[in-house]
Amino acid sequence: MDKSLRLYLQNRKAIINKALNKHLYKSIKYPPVVHDAMRYSIFSGGKRLRPILVLAAAEAISRGRRSAKRDEALLKAAVAMEMIHTSSLIHDDLPAMDDDDCRRGRPSCHKKYSEAVAVITGDALIMRAFEIAAGTGNCRVVREIADASGTRGMIGGQAVDIEPFNSKSRRQDVIRKLNFVHANKTAALIRVSLRIGAIIAGAKEEELKALDRYGRAIGLAFQVTDDILDVSEDEGVSYPGVYGVAQSRKKVGQLVKEAHKSLEMFNGGINKLKKLAEYIETRKK
Amino acid sequence: MDKSLRLYLQNRKAIINKALNKHLYKSIKYPPVVHDAMRYSIFSGGKRLRPILVLAAAEAISRGRRSAKRDEALLKAAVAMEMIHTSSLIHDDLPAMDDDDCRRGRPSCHKKYSEAVAVITGDALIMRAFEIAAGTGNCRVVREIADASGTRGMIGGQAVDIEPFNSKSRRQDVIRKLNFVHANKTAALIRVSLRIGAIIAGAKEEELKALDRYGRAIGLAFQVTDDILDVSEDEGVSYPGVYGVAQSRKKVGQLVKEAHKSLEMFNGGINKLKKLAEYIETRKK
Repeated sequence: MDKSLRLYLQNRKAIINKALNKHLYKSIKYPPVVHDAMRYSIFSGGKRLRPILVLAAAEAISRGRRSAKRDEALLKAAVAMEMIHTSSLIHDDLPAMDDDDCRRGRPSCHKKYSEAVAVITGDALIMRAFEIAAGTGNCRVVREIADASGTRGMIGGQAVDIEPFNSKSRRQDVIRKLNFVHANKTAALIRVSLRIGAIIAGAKEEELKALDRYGRAIGLAFQVTDDILDVSEDEGVSYPGVYGVAQSRKKVGQLVKEAHKSLEMFNGGINKLKKLAEYIETRKK
Repeated sequence: MDKSLRLYLQNRKAIINKALNKHLYKSIKYPPVVHDAMRYSIFSGGKRLRPILVLAAAEAISRGRRSAKRDEALLKAAVAMEMIHTSSLIHDDLPAMDDDDCRRGRPSCHKKYSEAVAVITGDALIMRAFEIAAGTGNCRVVREIADASGTRGMIGGQAVDIEPFNSKSRRQDVIRKLNFVHANKTAALIRVSLRIGAIIAGAKEEELKALDRYGRAIGLAFQVTDDILDVSEDEGVSYPGVYGVAQSRKKVGQLVKEAHKSLEMFNGGINKLKKLAEYIETRKK
């Protein structure tokens, strides 16, 4: 990875982890189990991609127009995105869903605690996310997050993802399903992270649209590279499974070009977004 | 039930059901299963107590100060409360939680669909609730709902409720647990329903506090009468289980008196809130 990008990501990750720690009700001790499980799941070594995008999008919009109040709102929005993302991982890992015992090399939430605790811990993170998001004082930010996380976004993607895979499906139906799951389950939260960062920074509509296109492109690129890297995944509805690895890599290259192109309208502040798109193409893990 | 109360509840229920229908994305068809499951669970014959309280609290605050915009915001807040409540029932019924196959005489969501669908349908209703709540344009309303639904309210109550019951617990620990679950799992959403209705109607802080006390009292009364009426429930951590039925009925009487007392500061607009409290004491189902 490019050294300046690595340092940038490290710096932003540290800022976000500090904010997550602050917003997880450190002082509340009762009931212990759900608070423990929230912390366990949030601090399990995630990349913090979505919250970093909230902050990075704001940089593309308002260079020199920073204020303490705006920075505080951005961090709240960033924390909310990570909590919603983590909640979706906890529920996705449940036995009734993907049935994953492990998450990032550690027991998944329901393995560490119990299924019941995992169900309510996911719910608790969603509630906390919206409480913090509303703390920005910007109801549009709350609406955008909720819309992108619901049945028109992330949960819509999950709903199609859990449909039983029919090996006799026509190729075009498999491709349609694959594209829908990728566009919604992963890309929707990535797009909205960029959007809310930009909204808080006072973006114009055309800037929002450009960042949305960038988010769609890197969101899909991220998911396709995930599929390529994840050798253990059962094939069938993965990109390499349908198109093969070579064609999938080509698709990632196209998406990264699209991402770069959508940033052309900005006059600076987009260096890190560019490098992030390039990194997705070359990442090894 | 008092006839004027019955007609009032019928009327409000019809208004709320219409709003719920409108806010459940009627036009969206894909993915079908999660949208079907949301409708199935929302339209399963609930009493709509929480959304009715949103509307009733507003009546106590601003007689004659109604506007179309305010009424629209109240309905949005009301719909959001019912969605969060329904989401908690869906997740509560899951095999890992209370493991209930039936809800209001029909198969519970995970029995009708699947466990996976029930998990994401509950999540989807929470997301939609916050999207609609944010549509009021009032971030305080969103924050209050999220706080009351999270680990400092409803989910906190659920977390303690799912702790394994230890038959060797000291009586005072059982009572503490019982009070915590009742105050949080049920009363928190009832209190916040009244609060957000009053906030949208422009309540002063002392009016909010009075309605909050009323909500706490009827929330507990409601839960205790639920315990008394629910003969099938395993005893142990229910009010009648700890105090006996006679003492529990006495407690309900005290709570209804408390509820009435907290309404004394209002000059009218509280007739229905009074009757609702009385009804809880005499209800047979």
